[in-house]
Amino acid sequence: MWPGIRLLRRPLSTLSARGLVYEKHGEPLQVLRLQNLEVPSPGDYDVRVKILAAPINPSDINMVQGTYALLPELPAVGGNEGVGVVAEIGNHVTSVRPGDWVIPVDAGLGTWRTEGLYNESSLVRVPSDIPVVGAATLSVNPCTAYRLLSDYETLRPGDSIIQNASNSSVGQVVIQIAASLGITTINVVRDRSDLSSLVQRLHDLGADHVITEDVLRKPEMKELFKKCPRPKLALNCVGGKSTTEMLRHLDYGGTMVTYGGMAKQPVTIPVSALIFKNVKLCGFWVTQWKRDRAHNREEVTKMIRDLSDLIRRGKLVTPPSTEWPLQDFAKAMRDAQTPFLSRKQILIM
Amino acid sequence: MWPGIRLLRRPLSTLSARGLVYEKHGEPLQVLRLQNLEVPSPGDYDVRVKILAAPINPSDINMVQGTYALLPELPAVGGNEGVGVVAEIGNHVTSVRPGDWVIPVDAGLGTWRTEGLYNESSLVRVPSDIPVVGAATLSVNPCTAYRLLSDYETLRPGDSIIQNASNSSVGQVVIQIAASLGITTINVVRDRSDLSSLVQRLHDLGADHVITEDVLRKPEMKELFKKCPRPKLALNCVGGKSTTEMLRHLDYGGTMVTYGGMAKQPVTIPVSALIFKNVKLCGFWVTQWKRDRAHNREEVTKMIRDLSDLIRRGKLVTPPSTEWPLQDFAKAMRDAQTPFLSRKQILIM
Repeated sequence: MWPGIRLLRRPLSTLSARGLVYEKHGEPLQVLRLQNLEVPSPGDYDVRVKILAAPINPSDINMVQGTYALLPELPAVGGNEGVGVVAEIGNHVTSVRPGDWVIPVDAGLGTWRTEGLYNESSLVRVPSDIPVVGAATLSVNPCTAYRLLSDYETLRPGDSIIQNASNSSVGQVVIQIAASLGITTINVVRDRSDLSSLVQRLHDLGADHVITEDVLRKPEMKELFKKCPRPKLALNCVGGKSTTEMLRHLDYGGTMVTYGGMAKQPVTIPVSALIFKNVKLCGFWVTQWKRDRAHNREEVTKMIRDLSDLIRRGKLVTPPSTEWPLQDFAKAMRDAQTPFLSRKQILIM
Repeated sequence: MWPGIRLLRRPLSTLSARGLVYEKHGEPLQVLRLQNLEVPSPGDYDVRVKILAAPINPSDINMVQGTYALLPELPAVGGNEGVGVVAEIGNHVTSVRPGDWVIPVDAGLGTWRTEGLYNESSLVRVPSDIPVVGAATLSVNPCTAYRLLSDYETLRPGDSIIQNASNSSVGQVVIQIAASLGITTINVVRDRSDLSSLVQRLHDLGADHVITEDVLRKPEMKELFKKCPRPKLALNCVGGKSTTEMLRHLDYGGTMVTYGGMAKQPVTIPVSALIFKNVKLCGFWVTQWKRDRAHNREEVTKMIRDLSDLIRRGKLVTPPSTEWPLQDFAKAMRDAQTPFLSRKQILIM
């Protein structure tokens, strides 16, 4: 399932590839080394890709640390997301051509490298007329947000949804996709010193209502629901009390989808909400979703097309980001692990 | 939605109906009175029913106490379940004839009475060749068990399910229906002094595995899963720790359906079970299920037919019960509220 890598132990005069390799799990700054990599010629179904840009996501860091639900065989190249340009294809490859931009549809491909060899089935084409950073950050967070809004409740213009961690990468995309569809968003955020600027920023993205977690317990919610219907869908990335409070406002028969657990606390639901309010709970993991569609790409390609369209039309903006040359990866890792920084750290190859 | 009742304030020489009436909510023994009732002639869509037998369920008692999710207009006749024989029908009634046995398909009909007038749509025919007590106790617990096993996961012979409160009325029917379908049941019960006789009794009903709640946390579970696959479906009537422990054994992608909350504690799920094990949670309430099908009786009649067949073939036994003449209702109520008695109290009219 995981592409093996071959480390070059001896120096070569012409080295086409370098990558951030870890031979054991641990803190990224301690275990990641920038190493030379051998990139073999493509087999029949392989695609050689020159990586253009790759972000550092929290799940990438967890994977290096060894705490993620999916772990590669070691040694491995870090990074699960990014965009590259096809350099060379195998004889039987039909879905992409040299010059095409591609993004991964499987996790664990190791995108923190200048060049890699991938199986055709683990890549999908992305239009090359959208910004590099937009394409490099498309396959995890925007895909998650898209599926959360598509797969659980039939949402029509005027319907509303509620989400916590609304300032997360996924949360910001949820706001933008929902706004483009005329769906009202109720966005829960943690209280903080610069709350008003955060609220303004989310409103600028298209958020209808931005509230802090303690407001969920207050009579202000009644006033809010005079302005919009109760949400049919709740998106949960937190867990614990925040989630239980959010659930209370869900409409009869609504669904709460959990896609993260930032609070590191379980989800607690009153029995009466299940029986008498008929709420449903489930989870979403974009990696599994894509794996389940390894042999049928229709939904994947439609999603990439829709998201690229939104980017092109300015309805989905590229996340605030800082770009780093690959050799400065240590600084990039440090900033990626700094809380409340709210900027995506991107490695440029 | 609720049929009004008319109390006879003046004595009549010929009184055809008596019923257990409460004019305010409270403890059944304090608020229920055996009173004379007027039963008007049927309107075009009405059915006059002579009640044969009606059980006392926990939800009936909660309704009298005023703590249930559905409450009737007062004064009301108690009881939500039972079987009766059609005495007279209105001009436009087509689904039943005089002499037919009928059971309620809506809650709140007030079955603790000798005779009542009901709308055709609130009744469904039941075969009269099954035992009276079987018919009188068909519409709540067996219907719940049937739907729990039918509506959430596609279960095939050899598949397994897990349930807690396995000794409850619903639990016992789950065991029997599952056994008739070749589905393996893992039945969790609370530890008690007469555990071995309970285990034997559930095995006699067709239970494959009977375990106490503390075993859920023990390595014995590993041994158990060498004998049967992990359950695709978990049926929860408890809440709290019991439920979280049960959930841990659910198969990837499985569903936990909550239909009761005996422990009066919420359901707690680890975030990872939702995201990485893809478990789904929902609730079931038979009253709402039937109301949602008020205009399409196909599923209801199929279910009644299937359950009656099981009773007729001896695959679904009538619950252990004690029958009481209506005038002894006070003793029946007392026994119905006695914990661990494990007998259904039935009023015979």
